[in-house]
Amino acid sequence: MADNPGPFAPRGSPAEVEEGRRLAPKFDADGLVACVATDAQSGDVLMVAHMNAEALARTIETGEAWYFSRSRRALWRKGETSGHVQRVKEMRIDCDQDAVWIKVEQAGGGACHTGRRSCFYRAVPLGVRKGAVTLEFRDAEKAFDPKAVYGDPDKPR
Amino acid sequence: MADNPGPFAPRGSPAEVEEGRRLAPKFDADGLVACVATDAQSGDVLMVAHMNAEALARTIETGEAWYFSRSRRALWRKGETSGHVQRVKEMRIDCDQDAVWIKVEQAGGGACHTGRRSCFYRAVPLGVRKGAVTLEFRDAEKAFDPKAVYGDPDKPR
Repeated sequence: MADNPGPFAPRGSPAEVEEGRRLAPKFDADGLVACVATDAQSGDVLMVAHMNAEALARTIETGEAWYFSRSRRALWRKGETSGHVQRVKEMRIDCDQDAVWIKVEQAGGGACHTGRRSCFYRAVPLGVRKGAVTLEFRDAEKAFDPKAVYGDPDKPR
Repeated sequence: MADNPGPFAPRGSPAEVEEGRRLAPKFDADGLVACVATDAQSGDVLMVAHMNAEALARTIETGEAWYFSRSRRALWRKGETSGHVQRVKEMRIDCDQDAVWIKVEQAGGGACHTGRRSCFYRAVPLGVRKGAVTLEFRDAEKAFDPKAVYGDPDKPR
């Protein structure tokens, strides 16, 4: 796998990057692009994570989501611990090629290590001018038991 | 505006951050969180950008999207040049509070400075093991004329 870790073109002019057909990602100073994973059926955002060049190449090659964990500084196949792999139905890249959008079929009921379907299970109220913001749980029911899946609840996903 | 630029709680334990009701964002080394904006009607991802503490506070306060431009190193009210503001219908924050999802009503037909509705107007083919990837334009019709909106086509959004 990933014999060819970088199927990427060099960065060209803005017009080439934005209007061309060559994949020329702009990795940031840490070598990462942002990746949004949405549920291919519902369209809901499941998670936001990052990919380095190898994670992006492996995702393209295998059709399963690979990420780079910033906290663990390690390549990370989504579902390697939980079995909750993400089968990528479609991948898009944005205008300046520094962000990726994948539409996925999420195995195991949920993407979030807390057991929810989505990592975005709390709403931030708007129009708050002063003082602390109180989050509101929304779509926060557990889709699986994280202790059963991960064992140690403090273990990163 | 933004008399209170930081309505944020200090970071607590992982359990407090993940299961609590206090907004305690984890800004990265550059002081940023990632933000995904989706179309409140269609659910499509319109763009991915970043917010610093002030952009996040202003978005919460005003209900309109503010970002921080990494290329320009500047606070950026979405639509300040184009008029294509984003009215935020709902804001979510993720489990570890380092990413934000906003569902927006996009003014002016499109979010992308190239004139498209979404910045994600090219698909990346999957299953490519060797050689260069050729992008496929998808949902790439222009929603507005960027030259008429921005003047100089090389001007950042």
